[in-house]
Amino acid sequence: MNLLLLFDDDFVDAHRVRLTGRRREHVMHVHRAGVGDALVVGRAGGRVGEGTIVRLDDDALELDVVLDREPPPALPLTLVLALPRPKVLNRVLAGATSMGVKRIVLVNAWRVEKSYWKSPRMSVENLLLQRVLGLEQARDTILPSIDVQRFFRPFVERELPELARGSLAVVAHPGARDECPRNVGQPVTLVIGPEGGFIDEEIASLEKAGFAPVSLGERVLRVETAVAALLGRLF
Amino acid sequence: MNLLLLFDDDFVDAHRVRLTGRRREHVMHVHRAGVGDALVVGRAGGRVGEGTIVRLDDDALELDVVLDREPPPALPLTLVLALPRPKVLNRVLAGATSMGVKRIVLVNAWRVEKSYWKSPRMSVENLLLQRVLGLEQARDTILPSIDVQRFFRPFVERELPELARGSLAVVAHPGARDECPRNVGQPVTLVIGPEGGFIDEEIASLEKAGFAPVSLGERVLRVETAVAALLGRLF
Repeated sequence: MNLLLLFDDDFVDAHRVRLTGRRREHVMHVHRAGVGDALVVGRAGGRVGEGTIVRLDDDALELDVVLDREPPPALPLTLVLALPRPKVLNRVLAGATSMGVKRIVLVNAWRVEKSYWKSPRMSVENLLLQRVLGLEQARDTILPSIDVQRFFRPFVERELPELARGSLAVVAHPGARDECPRNVGQPVTLVIGPEGGFIDEEIASLEKAGFAPVSLGERVLRVETAVAALLGRLF
Repeated sequence: MNLLLLFDDDFVDAHRVRLTGRRREHVMHVHRAGVGDALVVGRAGGRVGEGTIVRLDDDALELDVVLDREPPPALPLTLVLALPRPKVLNRVLAGATSMGVKRIVLVNAWRVEKSYWKSPRMSVENLLLQRVLGLEQARDTILPSIDVQRFFRPFVERELPELARGSLAVVAHPGARDECPRNVGQPVTLVIGPEGGFIDEEIASLEKAGFAPVSLGERVLRVETAVAALLGRLF
């Protein structure tokens, strides 16, 4: 945790917050901080600054906060991900958030197992927690949106072209002839398939929706590795 | 597992292998393959090809293999990593291996907790397993070397300059003024610090050894995210 993320409900007056639960425990037992210590803090959706601990015990953590600078710039990217297996989902969400992605769409695909949609990790609470962990990692405050699209075809045919308008539209597809472009200097809509990849019909639908298949070479990467490598290359 | 990695000991004759343990179980229960099915296989240190299952039961998996093509090209990179916390170590080793890194050095640093060196994950068996998992992911066969350097200064002063000779030498350091270069088209030696970063003295030692501090921007990334993003950008 490189930044303590604060929400409106945490504020007991304009410059003081009171925290309990995970954040209090982390500051007490991992940071091993005490009264008088200063931590990097940020207000969800707002500015970043410093919080000075005025109370820390088994009940609560209280800080006086000064928020005086902007969070890091966002990546101009919409990330459309075939729903990863639950074990991987958390890491991908936190990782993409830490890199500055602000718009994530989780979509079904032929090779997405139905059971993934029913995982407890798809709960609203967990989807929020993973994004918060990503923001805390990168000292950011702007939560990415997550849009859940249970049906591939209607989403790709009716919504995706509009979503991708004005951006470079690419689908990462191992074995595609074209290399993923570099340092593109423009907004990107990036689609990433499931383990095992999209099937031919899905790639055809995506091409019809204006997406160019691109690859990082012949290696098949895990989705969290692929996301980070693609973003490192595109921006 | 996108490739079944075969070792010399697995061969019962020139074209037949017999496997037990993790690989047999994976093919039986995850691939749910059966006699007559073909799998992508590769011989450690050698070629890639196809294996046809001739026996699969609770005791053994036997395949007839034809190895007819080269593994994917390697990245011309030496990755020098401050030893990550054990939880992260596995993912970083498998991830870097999957991207084609062939030379990994694990080194101590001020902010590496001493206990990390005693973790069971530092066993020879686990260090091998994680690299094998990375090769299986990326359909590669060439195992990266891992060199363990318990002492930072003697390593950086006496060995690192020779190790980095002829390559672009960079240390990833959040907050460095220079951006990480892109698509460099030459061998790279990349040093990555621990959680919390290298201390000033360590950066000074690395600079003296010829390493330029570079950054990916103001965001602090987890080491596995940083490695993939940096490699995506450098190559």
